[in-house]
Amino acid sequence: MTTAIGLLAALLTTAAFLPQVLHTLATRDTRGISLRMYVIFVAGVLLWLIYGLLVRDLPLILANAITLLLAGAILYLKLRHG
Amino acid sequence: MTTAIGLLAALLTTAAFLPQVLHTLATRDTRGISLRMYVIFVAGVLLWLIYGLLVRDLPLILANAITLLLAGAILYLKLRHG
Repeated sequence: MTTAIGLLAALLTTAAFLPQVLHTLATRDTRGISLRMYVIFVAGVLLWLIYGLLVRDLPLILANAITLLLAGAILYLKLRHG
Repeated sequence: MTTAIGLLAALLTTAAFLPQVLHTLATRDTRGISLRMYVIFVAGVLLWLIYGLLVRDLPLILANAITLLLAGAILYLKLRHG
């Protein structure tokens, strides 16, 4: 049960960035999105991915690889349309 | 070194939401922010917090309590000004 809660938590906090990517692709409106947030967040997720690789934790690696792609896409759209 | 990378990763992915809160408070422009993202993300962080309490992991509890407050504030501002 505890593991299931952790896995669901990881799934939700990873998947959450997909609707933001789709919303930003549809609207191209990035004025309300903080550039600083995504610069700091993408750097943090990259470090989480490196940490996951160092401790060889597959859930950490997978979740952060996906989050890096999604949050990285939002950062790219912010830089392009901001 | 590995632990330092993990701690820095946790610090960055938690602190990243503060500039978004400040940006949204300053601009009140939430049109570019995805409501679905923050509903899913806040639910996920709440589950991370519950998971941290269940496994009694202090870094997980602290990081997710702070992220819940910050992401919850963004969700509140989106609901109020969206």
